[in-house]
Amino acid sequence: MPLMPVTDSMFLLVETREHPMHVGGLQLFRKPEGAGPDYLSTLRQNLLEATEMRNLFRRRPARPVNTVGHLAWSEDNALDLDYHFRHSALPQPGRIRELLELTSRWHSTLLDRHRPLWEIHLVEGLRDGRFALYSKVHHALLDGVSALRHLQNMLSEDPAAMDCPPPWGARDRQRPRTARGPRSPFDALGRAAGQLAGLAPAAVKVANEAFREHTLTMPMQAPKTMLNVPIGGARRFAAQSWPLSRVRAIASAAGVSRNDVVLAMCSGALRDYLIEQRALPDTAMIAMVPMSLRKPSEGLAEASGNSIGALLCNLATDLADPAQRLAAIHRSMCDGKALFTQLTPLQTLLLSGINVAALGASPIPGVVNNTRPPFNIVISNVPGPRRQMYWNGAALDGVYPASVLLDGQALNITMTSNGDNLDFGITGCRRSVPHLQRILLHLDTALAELEDAVR
Amino acid sequence: MPLMPVTDSMFLLVETREHPMHVGGLQLFRKPEGAGPDYLSTLRQNLLEATEMRNLFRRRPARPVNTVGHLAWSEDNALDLDYHFRHSALPQPGRIRELLELTSRWHSTLLDRHRPLWEIHLVEGLRDGRFALYSKVHHALLDGVSALRHLQNMLSEDPAAMDCPPPWGARDRQRPRTARGPRSPFDALGRAAGQLAGLAPAAVKVANEAFREHTLTMPMQAPKTMLNVPIGGARRFAAQSWPLSRVRAIASAAGVSRNDVVLAMCSGALRDYLIEQRALPDTAMIAMVPMSLRKPSEGLAEASGNSIGALLCNLATDLADPAQRLAAIHRSMCDGKALFTQLTPLQTLLLSGINVAALGASPIPGVVNNTRPPFNIVISNVPGPRRQMYWNGAALDGVYPASVLLDGQALNITMTSNGDNLDFGITGCRRSVPHLQRILLHLDTALAELEDAVR
Repeated sequence: MPLMPVTDSMFLLVETREHPMHVGGLQLFRKPEGAGPDYLSTLRQNLLEATEMRNLFRRRPARPVNTVGHLAWSEDNALDLDYHFRHSALPQPGRIRELLELTSRWHSTLLDRHRPLWEIHLVEGLRDGRFALYSKVHHALLDGVSALRHLQNMLSEDPAAMDCPPPWGARDRQRPRTARGPRSPFDALGRAAGQLAGLAPAAVKVANEAFREHTLTMPMQAPKTMLNVPIGGARRFAAQSWPLSRVRAIASAAGVSRNDVVLAMCSGALRDYLIEQRALPDTAMIAMVPMSLRKPSEGLAEASGNSIGALLCNLATDLADPAQRLAAIHRSMCDGKALFTQLTPLQTLLLSGINVAALGASPIPGVVNNTRPPFNIVISNVPGPRRQMYWNGAALDGVYPASVLLDGQALNITMTSNGDNLDFGITGCRRSVPHLQRILLHLDTALAELEDAVR
Repeated sequence: MPLMPVTDSMFLLVETREHPMHVGGLQLFRKPEGAGPDYLSTLRQNLLEATEMRNLFRRRPARPVNTVGHLAWSEDNALDLDYHFRHSALPQPGRIRELLELTSRWHSTLLDRHRPLWEIHLVEGLRDGRFALYSKVHHALLDGVSALRHLQNMLSEDPAAMDCPPPWGARDRQRPRTARGPRSPFDALGRAAGQLAGLAPAAVKVANEAFREHTLTMPMQAPKTMLNVPIGGARRFAAQSWPLSRVRAIASAAGVSRNDVVLAMCSGALRDYLIEQRALPDTAMIAMVPMSLRKPSEGLAEASGNSIGALLCNLATDLADPAQRLAAIHRSMCDGKALFTQLTPLQTLLLSGINVAALGASPIPGVVNNTRPPFNIVISNVPGPRRQMYWNGAALDGVYPASVLLDGQALNITMTSNGDNLDFGITGCRRSVPHLQRILLHLDTALAELEDAVR
């Protein structure tokens, strides 16, 4: 097998007990009408018998031990499917709360590097009769957006389709158009960085190179907050859905984009949460928002690295009024100056997914030497399926992304559209972000306040 | 807080993803008569409200990151009990098999070093109505024997006693005599090594010192087997109980010790398992059996390091006849030459619990330089409670130890007496020891064969 591109290997190289480098996804399903008590055990048995497996799911590091230098993938031909595909259950009373508690635990532990870097749990025991899949895939294999899309390839728009493959066997070609969101901005980044890798194969070297030529000046100054601290290894995960129609109504009433409204929801929730924690900074918090800059007409397949960017968004958390906050966010997102124009694609990737300091790179102007964080939080809006999707007759009720955290970035909010809903996944360091689940309440309040503000 | 003795810190220093250094225990309980559907949730709530906590359970490494040198303990005053005490459930159909599968998963993941080094799961969902506790404690806090004894301190002989503490709050003083087995041999070892630590504080140095003065010559030669290979991080755990009376009857009919019979059971099971795997070595396999050498009359409290030893036992796996195997094992255990007389207590501890090579120590005569393993497997017989014990009215049905594995030692068998039963816990590397659960069948066969042989 070939050497790993540096974009893969660096996620293995920087991983520690405190910084697991896997992305997660929680998918909630409604059983089909008339499903009997054996529905899940039959489903599980059928999945275990599905022997066809995509190459990606057989890939493991050739050398499991962490060493800086060339890393290669090797193929596991004796894969222990029982290990990777796990049957799990919720304790009583089987609420979403118990599901999130278990997801938090699963998201906290490291993947075994002696095996292909993924685990999927089939979860029973929800008292409302639904079931869940929790998937965990190493960032070296797939970024979060690709992982989400990958798993969605197993879905169908047809509730009667009973030949949907398991996540690891998802069909490559005949995937339905609507089940597949636009390409991830990180796909193109990966390709661009892959080219660089030829010049400077060791990740440390690449990280240095990436920042040496252009001194990074930050167009805005982010305050230091309780979210910008070193993190531990344990995670807490929270998730909830809101109707897309409510976001759409606010966007249209205020004359702003849907993404502006979503950022304003997050801003309001962060403000309320930090007030509760007595930790709201005096100045506005800054979010880093990964974006595709290509015009929709240009065709996604040809997206090149240069069309990718990250916006720094002023979240206006210093403003108490929701309407003023929404307006400030809208202005900030429209403001070209906020764009990371100076960033190369690799720099963007590093800032998005990697704590460069952890690479042991020499001081990097504007990032490591700065006592202030470059931004306070990463907020990603990832396109998901546009219509109601099914998996062997079971309706997909929710799909919630669980992200990688970094030193200095103890909280991450990633949301994805799913049919008529917007599904939020919130990942936090269990030590640094107490009562994380309260952010869900605050998101709900923030949405209602925005509705009031534009009425 | 004081510096850690080297006997604690070395377990932190040598820990890697492939070599988690925690010991585990699975305890099975029968609910009391008339327990309602809310029995477990009430039990859990009561335990969460038990705020008194022994100091040991508040202890965490002052510096979580792995560095060779002085390590200290610090005390966690804001312990997140919800993190350490977990509520878990078995998936359908809720057999012991599902319980062992979950235990295998839990035993494979690393403890979070930013917190006190323990986790306890309260497990529901066994279809026979029983429930379980799985406990996981870092070897730096407690060795396996102490952990077992520690957890047993929460038990009572009285089924009506409803004031039993949670595992982390177990009473220090009024523990019932019978709930406490003899002192662990490793207790004294710990003290002895603790004294050495003053002379040579870094673990690497101590490992070297321990072996420098006396060149270790092995009194027997162990063959290289499939069990003596580098290991991965994933574990498989199997457990089962057998009536002590059956072992006792064989011992008395054959005129050997009960421990001889247990070793012969293990030997027969290993032989059958390795035949099945087409991997039985031509020469006899050697087990390392940790032993207390003090006479029962001498009083355990004063046990010093010098009274501790390890026996090398010839398992006679090359003999097909069970009676001949039992006789050979008996002779080997009686043979003074098999004793590790040349070992200092620290050497014994290192050989028992640590792969010295992993310490990065320079070549050690007789251990690292030898292409043959010093022994093939560690088999420990740990004294447990002599009578039927209860925990807030729930009867203790089984207590199964899950051990630490090392490079070169991919399988461990530890058994403990529990009232009228002998409870076996088998821990294996999931990659190197396929179909580990078949060893349970082979143990059962071996016991029956021994009964036939002495009839």
